Amino acid sequence: MATLHYELHYWPSIPGRGEFVRLALEYADVPYLDVAREPEEAGGGEMALVRFLVDPKLARPPFAPPFLVAGDQVIGQTANILLFLGSRHGLAPADEPGRLWTHQLQLTIADLAGEVHDTHHPIAAGLYYEDQRAEARRRAEDFRAHRLPRFLGWFERVLAHASGGDAGLAGPDVTYADLSLFHVVAGLRYAFPRAMRQLEPAHPRLVALHDRIASSARLAAYLASPRRLPFSEEGIFRHYAELDD
Amino acid sequence: MATLHYELHYWPSIPGRGEFVRLALEYADVPYLDVAREPEEAGGGEMALVRFLVDPKLARPPFAPPFLVAGDQVIGQTANILLFLGSRHGLAPADEPGRLWTHQLQLTIADLAGEVHDTHHPIAAGLYYEDQRAEARRRAEDFRAHRLPRFLGWFERVLAHASGGDAGLAGPDVTYADLSLFHVVAGLRYAFPRAMRQLEPAHPRLVALHDRIASSARLAAYLASPRRLPFSEEGIFRHYAELDD
Repeated sequence: MATLHYELHYWPSIPGRGEFVRLALEYADVPYLDVAREPEEAGGGEMALVRFLVDPKLARPPFAPPFLVAGDQVIGQTANILLFLGSRHGLAPADEPGRLWTHQLQLTIADLAGEVHDTHHPIAAGLYYEDQRAEARRRAEDFRAHRLPRFLGWFERVLAHASGGDAGLAGPDVTYADLSLFHVVAGLRYAFPRAMRQLEPAHPRLVALHDRIASSARLAAYLASPRRLPFSEEGIFRHYAELDD
Repeated sequence: MATLHYELHYWPSIPGRGEFVRLALEYADVPYLDVAREPEEAGGGEMALVRFLVDPKLARPPFAPPFLVAGDQVIGQTANILLFLGSRHGLAPADEPGRLWTHQLQLTIADLAGEVHDTHHPIAAGLYYEDQRAEARRRAEDFRAHRLPRFLGWFERVLAHASGGDAGLAGPDVTYADLSLFHVVAGLRYAFPRAMRQLEPAHPRLVALHDRIASSARLAAYLASPRRLPFSEEGIFRHYAELDD
């Protein structure tokens, strides 16, 4: 099929939810423009993104970034963008049950990412971390004790079934859900190094999946480039020592 | 197409996320079994649900209810179940952009429902409300002041575009997203009557959509039946006066 010219719109300074889309585009080797990271003189910058969010003429506006502009479609919601890209670029099984299963995995990854975000912002996304530190400590404690083991255990269980050695979550081929899970493991290691050191030995297949994706030839150039933004205390996965203790 | 025999699995005592699926099945007039609400002697009850969650032989296990058993498929994640039902039973546009847009709407509705849940459980889903009351009050205040108006404003804006009088969110026909948004408005009125009384006048199309679905002939029997579970202080939409004040 003809290659579409994709425009990805996401905040320019954090991996955030945009990274799940970037990894899919990079792995599939699909050309795209990361609009907000282009110079403002060239029509980039955050203003290009904000224009879409507030454009009163847009009949199908995104609620929030990331969103993908593909021709005259503006597609929002991370998992929805991946559903679109997955069937177009070989990042999901071709059969309907396999496609739905891959999407189900992605939605569960999105739930996990949302809970990670809320460990440092349990009260309000619009307030600083420093304004909700006590609550964050309580929420992070529950997350590390209960939610994180439950999520990781579920992915490990899925991989135990899928695995004939080095299969992904949805079969022998790498899907967008595998790419997203790689990023989540990387992010969890950044945010909760102590908790992850304790949990990883019981989740060998999950660790192996992370390592396979991390060393994939199809991502090598991207992961080594400045396009792969580092984790920091401004994104979903933040390291605050008191939340990992 | 041949009618599949669907089994819906969800906690039997609350509308919860299962209700989004129920409304789609009821509106499409598709036969289904609400398994956990069947007698245990007949293979129902919560145990039938839990068996799926822990079944080690299940290669594609759900992470949590609701899930839909359709033949040999077990489909989890509310929005994913609706994606499946939508294309099978005329509850989403047939064209791909329309299908993706409907799903994008649903994922945004899911985000809103998640934030409603977290107003009363900002610290841990596994703790009682009473154990996180102070934090809930802070989170609910932010939700009412910032998040709720932002979500409702976005839906109103979408409806303003879609509307040629009484269109839904994705065009002239009722989609699963319209049904879900009806339920969210009903739930918000239950949980936050005071906040909703203040907000509704500025969102006339949203209120009209709720009213149209509420009086739809295709849902009349269901909504009047005991199958439509009432809101209570055990589900997503809970009324605690101090969170609405």
